[in-house]
Amino acid sequence: MAKKARRRATPTTDAKKPDVKLTAQDIKTLDTLKLLGERVVATAESSRPPHLDIPSRSLANVKFNKSKRFIEMSGGTNRRELFNLSQARSYMQTMLVASGCKRLIEQGKSNSIRGMYYMLKHTIEGTREETFNEQSESDPIIEDVEVTLNALREELHVYASNRGSIAGNLVFRDSGDEIDCSRMGSGGYTIPSIVEPNVIEFLSCDAKFILHVEKDTVWRRFNEDKFWRKHNCILTHGGGQPPRGVRRLLNRMHQELKLPIFCLLDNDPWGYYIYSVIKQGSINLAFESRRMAIPSAKFIGLRSRDFEACELSPSVTIKLTDQDIKRAKQIAKYPWFTDKKPWQKEIEGMLKNGFKLEVEALISKDISYVTETYVPEALERQDFLD
Amino acid sequence: MAKKARRRATPTTDAKKPDVKLTAQDIKTLDTLKLLGERVVATAESSRPPHLDIPSRSLANVKFNKSKRFIEMSGGTNRRELFNLSQARSYMQTMLVASGCKRLIEQGKSNSIRGMYYMLKHTIEGTREETFNEQSESDPIIEDVEVTLNALREELHVYASNRGSIAGNLVFRDSGDEIDCSRMGSGGYTIPSIVEPNVIEFLSCDAKFILHVEKDTVWRRFNEDKFWRKHNCILTHGGGQPPRGVRRLLNRMHQELKLPIFCLLDNDPWGYYIYSVIKQGSINLAFESRRMAIPSAKFIGLRSRDFEACELSPSVTIKLTDQDIKRAKQIAKYPWFTDKKPWQKEIEGMLKNGFKLEVEALISKDISYVTETYVPEALERQDFLD
Repeated sequence: MAKKARRRATPTTDAKKPDVKLTAQDIKTLDTLKLLGERVVATAESSRPPHLDIPSRSLANVKFNKSKRFIEMSGGTNRRELFNLSQARSYMQTMLVASGCKRLIEQGKSNSIRGMYYMLKHTIEGTREETFNEQSESDPIIEDVEVTLNALREELHVYASNRGSIAGNLVFRDSGDEIDCSRMGSGGYTIPSIVEPNVIEFLSCDAKFILHVEKDTVWRRFNEDKFWRKHNCILTHGGGQPPRGVRRLLNRMHQELKLPIFCLLDNDPWGYYIYSVIKQGSINLAFESRRMAIPSAKFIGLRSRDFEACELSPSVTIKLTDQDIKRAKQIAKYPWFTDKKPWQKEIEGMLKNGFKLEVEALISKDISYVTETYVPEALERQDFLD
Repeated sequence: MAKKARRRATPTTDAKKPDVKLTAQDIKTLDTLKLLGERVVATAESSRPPHLDIPSRSLANVKFNKSKRFIEMSGGTNRRELFNLSQARSYMQTMLVASGCKRLIEQGKSNSIRGMYYMLKHTIEGTREETFNEQSESDPIIEDVEVTLNALREELHVYASNRGSIAGNLVFRDSGDEIDCSRMGSGGYTIPSIVEPNVIEFLSCDAKFILHVEKDTVWRRFNEDKFWRKHNCILTHGGGQPPRGVRRLLNRMHQELKLPIFCLLDNDPWGYYIYSVIKQGSINLAFESRRMAIPSAKFIGLRSRDFEACELSPSVTIKLTDQDIKRAKQIAKYPWFTDKKPWQKEIEGMLKNGFKLEVEALISKDISYVTETYVPEALERQDFLD
């Protein structure tokens, strides 16, 4: 009986729900998706071979825009043709992902990138060929569709994992619920993966700036000490390298609420890289920079000089590995760091120290040294790296 | 000037803040910490060598209590002596962690396990010896202190990373803020690492049960489909193996709000193990079982039979690795599974299938099959593994 009940359940995969309210953005995204399909039909009807021109996401097609101060894609594209043996598979996959996104938007649902893999994976009829063998095949195709349609993944109703929390003097509406980030207890509000205006709508904000910290344990220190209340700010973390939802929310708060952003990150190559991505965008997702990058974000620490300035014990230093040294030298050569003397000095300082420092190392002075002394003094002195 | 300002900042590490309000639990924990110190003094004053008897956390000292239906520690202890060359270091570390916890409680602050490492790490005066060389040295000592004092880490004001979210028909107070889990938008409330009554106080609950899912992406599907609203429940996830905060909150909701708990986990050894830990406790943290384990938790799926029962495509199956097979056989031999025929059949079924299934595989039927068909049908039929 149990089995039968389940068997009877009709898959509604392709059913368009009549009660779904599409947002203006949804309608726009649907139009671009439909256009993609219509072009294929038109090409086929005129007996020409269907193809897609997909902006290239290779390093060669990425450049640092000095006036916009972020990484962006150049105009290079790769043609993907249906009637080309080496491209037919990825052509088909691209159309499959696009049709999956269309279905999601029409159903008013969203899906994880892993979920997309499962939704679209099947054995092609009459063959033994799978549409996708691994999720590692569908993930880059999702990025291809984003960049081809010039639509953020979030606009295609596809999300990655949630990671990161927020607390502070900010109220927004999230999917109809009013979220007061100043009343979020010890846990804070989980920053969703999709934070586009159709999901998150800012209602009011008293905060004067955003303090973004690297890890949840540091976030917790600032939240427990009610730093955001004393200093009237918004406190966020991204659980390491911030995921897209966190970067996009930071960008929206910066753009729409006109809040400056200060980043408190470890004194190591990973901390530098996190800052670089928040500020200038990442090479891999350069097509998102315009809606993700925050060129005026400031680096508040930790600094290479802090070992001496804060009189830290050698006990709390961590020796640089060969990998760290290599990575630091790479980062020093990023075009957006090369012409900045303070950054060159900062990175040289770490290499000269021969060690890295985590934000948590400041706990060795006092549990609340970072919230009561380190950050307040840097803010007062306006002492940041840019 | 900058440097001077920082140098002047007096470390307040040992300052006892007069305005800290201690909870009844804090006072109790402080008493046990003080007793630990007083015993050392008393032993020293009577010219006997100081020692600690630390309950052994080895597999040999753990057993499954059939009437309580969870894993618990037996009475075995290991003696740790100050005047024993091989034990002096760990003896000193134990006292150091205990004194650090005392300081935290007196200051009304909490600290991460990484922060504890930094707080207590220093070069021992007059030597080149570090108190701790790595965090991997301080973490087990924290567990030693917990088990010796019979105090949860959370009661010692030490926390691990936050992971996991909650939404549903539940209102609680967290650190003074009223958190209505039915108004948490798309992100949900981040489950804090410390959820003891002094932090989280339940105010009202309309929910009839708890649905705990493995991953945030599955949680998001249930939240987006407003499953908890339709079925009047509480929805949680633990980001894989749930961290202590999530387990403790599940336990408290189950005990204090009298809510049954259903677990929706992957059909693989990892899913079985997550269930086992939620239900019976973990071997490593057996001393916590009485406040963490939920012996009546039910396993709602995925089941080995679901490939056929739900008519899934072979495309969405994942071949078992040798490691999976080995792990499944180990789990089948857990004393709490050996006498349960349905569980033996379940694990045998997976081994016979030769593949595992993730919850997300149900998306291949329909994006909301899991929320609209799979779980509602299992609930209606009361079809669980126990």
